[in-house]
Amino acid sequence: MGYDPLAFQPLTFHDARARFRDGRDTPRAYLERAIETIAAREPVVKAFAHLNEDGARAAADASTARWKAGQPLSPIDGMPVAIKDLLETKDMPTEMGCEAFRGNFPKRDNAAVWALRQAGAVVFGKTVTAEMGGTQPGATTNPWDPARTPGGSSSGSAAAVAARMVPAALGTQVGGSVIRPSAFCGTLALKPTQGGIHRGERQTTSQSTTGVHAGSIEDMWQVAIEIANRCGGDPGRPGMIGPASTPAAVKPQRLIVLETEGWPELDRASRSAFEALLEQLRALDITLLRRSDHPWIEGLEQAIGKGRATCNAVTNWENRWYQRNLLDQFPQGLSERAKRTLASAEAMRVDDYRAALLERAAAQHRHAAVAPLADAAIMLSCPGPAPLWAGDTPGKPLAPRPTGDFVFNAPSSMLFAPAVTMPLLSVGGLPVGVQLMGQPHEDARVTALARWMLGAVKPIVTG
Amino acid sequence: MGYDPLAFQPLTFHDARARFRDGRDTPRAYLERAIETIAAREPVVKAFAHLNEDGARAAADASTARWKAGQPLSPIDGMPVAIKDLLETKDMPTEMGCEAFRGNFPKRDNAAVWALRQAGAVVFGKTVTAEMGGTQPGATTNPWDPARTPGGSSSGSAAAVAARMVPAALGTQVGGSVIRPSAFCGTLALKPTQGGIHRGERQTTSQSTTGVHAGSIEDMWQVAIEIANRCGGDPGRPGMIGPASTPAAVKPQRLIVLETEGWPELDRASRSAFEALLEQLRALDITLLRRSDHPWIEGLEQAIGKGRATCNAVTNWENRWYQRNLLDQFPQGLSERAKRTLASAEAMRVDDYRAALLERAAAQHRHAAVAPLADAAIMLSCPGPAPLWAGDTPGKPLAPRPTGDFVFNAPSSMLFAPAVTMPLLSVGGLPVGVQLMGQPHEDARVTALARWMLGAVKPIVTG
Repeated sequence: MGYDPLAFQPLTFHDARARFRDGRDTPRAYLERAIETIAAREPVVKAFAHLNEDGARAAADASTARWKAGQPLSPIDGMPVAIKDLLETKDMPTEMGCEAFRGNFPKRDNAAVWALRQAGAVVFGKTVTAEMGGTQPGATTNPWDPARTPGGSSSGSAAAVAARMVPAALGTQVGGSVIRPSAFCGTLALKPTQGGIHRGERQTTSQSTTGVHAGSIEDMWQVAIEIANRCGGDPGRPGMIGPASTPAAVKPQRLIVLETEGWPELDRASRSAFEALLEQLRALDITLLRRSDHPWIEGLEQAIGKGRATCNAVTNWENRWYQRNLLDQFPQGLSERAKRTLASAEAMRVDDYRAALLERAAAQHRHAAVAPLADAAIMLSCPGPAPLWAGDTPGKPLAPRPTGDFVFNAPSSMLFAPAVTMPLLSVGGLPVGVQLMGQPHEDARVTALARWMLGAVKPIVTG
Repeated sequence: MGYDPLAFQPLTFHDARARFRDGRDTPRAYLERAIETIAAREPVVKAFAHLNEDGARAAADASTARWKAGQPLSPIDGMPVAIKDLLETKDMPTEMGCEAFRGNFPKRDNAAVWALRQAGAVVFGKTVTAEMGGTQPGATTNPWDPARTPGGSSSGSAAAVAARMVPAALGTQVGGSVIRPSAFCGTLALKPTQGGIHRGERQTTSQSTTGVHAGSIEDMWQVAIEIANRCGGDPGRPGMIGPASTPAAVKPQRLIVLETEGWPELDRASRSAFEALLEQLRALDITLLRRSDHPWIEGLEQAIGKGRATCNAVTNWENRWYQRNLLDQFPQGLSERAKRTLASAEAMRVDDYRAALLERAAAQHRHAAVAPLADAAIMLSCPGPAPLWAGDTPGKPLAPRPTGDFVFNAPSSMLFAPAVTMPLLSVGGLPVGVQLMGQPHEDARVTALARWMLGAVKPIVTG
């Protein structure tokens, strides 16, 4: 069951296209294999909230016909893609892991889902999310150890990719909900620049992005760019821009190592695995810069030094009005955790929110200042391996962060910065991700750097 | 029936508070008078899509008790406020003037409606909107001539205030939907800085604001600031900030007269009424600057010279995904006009949208550049009096802009700038508004300047 990054072969789609073209394989057969994997692993992993196998088979057959005619709609035509159950899908319910949304079934497609269908992708499942994208966990378990959380809130999307059920899945991140679950599950993920992929009906928070979990960097990029080229970014934003296929690998010359407020809390094994990885980079002639090396880096570290609190203040305020409406309508519809978050939000004043926005803007200026110093920033994607999670104990206080701590994810979220997490560490038989973070709108550049790292760096395995 | 700005007495609330305090009047009695006015005028004006008189009476009684106890929740406690039927209200349907939304009744309050209730306001009606805030008119007629449009899309909100049914109403503006109907109906209105008032569930366009129509500048400001102080601005924005009661009048020293692309199309009577108004300002020692007086003003005029096209490109693209979902679900649910707008949007590519965003951003820079030149900009709020509108003729081409042309409204919309329209002109017995536009976040300043104008300038009446 232990995670070995040297041996693990994720499910990929990009390398199936040649076989679709010459008829050795078909999107329908690809889908059937995915469905078999789901049948085998779903009873333990519990990645899906809903499946629409009939609809998927019809879509895969249509794709098969297009490939046969030599006219696929895009490079992801026929790719099975799972959708986080926060995003609306016209052919499946959208229940958001929340009692208040049980049976909710708007007959609409989220903008990114709509774009995926236009590109010919096979939308066939909704993945489990922590309640409304918050911290109350759903049923999904970590594919490498069912006693542990897969992370959240995009729990099912990351787990479905890690369990080889799908080559790619959509997630969303407000604080750390794309990067952390992928890091805990051992998959790749892109959390784009804020506004990079149109969020559709989900526009009520100022820092959230739709992201892509994938088994390979090729599929990760391809899914993201096919969506962005069709539905664009959020209203008022140019959206993600980049090459039509995965950017070629680019070796970085200089990287900023960000410690973030997670560094002092980190377990020894994860820290030494990360340092061993950095040692490899140094041996490859990459200059690493840390907070003691430049005052601007120290300034950035300080500006993100209370990132969790800033993210929580911003997001809790922004969800407050919406969740109050929901709770008034469904008094039993929210978990105790969600009710507590709402209560803390309702204790805020508008000036508290404005203060948090200023903290965030100041951190963004600090981040912009370091752009000339290095090609990107590198940091852990999660504070060590996924924690154990056995559920809350009745009568006991609620565990603080059952889907894990977003301490390494708050920076890219509040900085509106693109981040790619890579499955480069194994600690005690469990995945731990490492991420690269770029300046806003450098999604393609960060992807190119990550592609280089995946090819040039040997994953670190520690006991 | 003719509009005489010297004689017309709009319905006001701010001056009723002293009577509530000493018991000479009550919010319940105020409401009953409003209901009587509605009964008398509604058969012709048709301002309302829904009324909730029972709920309003209960809310007015509660307010009456608070005033009696000397504990009103805010200066607008007890004020009857009508809500544009685009905004969700938990106790009334939200049908958006659109067949596809017939019977739509989410049990939620829009953020601004929620804030109004927290301030003790009496939410008692939903006003007619052009279909989904677009150009397909609803049933409302102009209170000064039922053969004419009240403007749109906030048709019912402007008409209800002009017909003295309510002292204030909420509207929304994407292109010109707050300022133009108020200008055609002879009321005041504030279109705040983009993001100034939380739009709640309506976040899917990048240039739209919730605004306030009112009979007096005191009620206009008070409603806006009470909302902003409770629900804040849009996610990620500081929201409207300003004094707790209406800013004192401030005399401008210099004003920029903006012609906009509407100038060449303007009728002679409206143009000379506006010039007569400017002559009064000159006589009061205010310096007026026009495009020939400064190259930066000429630069701004050029940057907004195709404002309508830029606004349409931005907004049509942004509504495209949403309206496609709607039309797929309800093939008969949209008007022919809306379908044509959707078709033109679906002919766009993401790069067309990006180009329009760049045009808009460039115009915003041009606008910022003129800030040091004057206290604000002054321009007409509409291209002359409200046009006649008898409905479409079957078999004939659709009339292009049945709720009037937004040529004088595109600038403040695309510049994200606050604007206040004032009922200062009467042309041929019909109202024509004049607006002041400030730099973003100068909502209070523009209100102060407008207050001065309302006190110091004599309205112009021409045949």
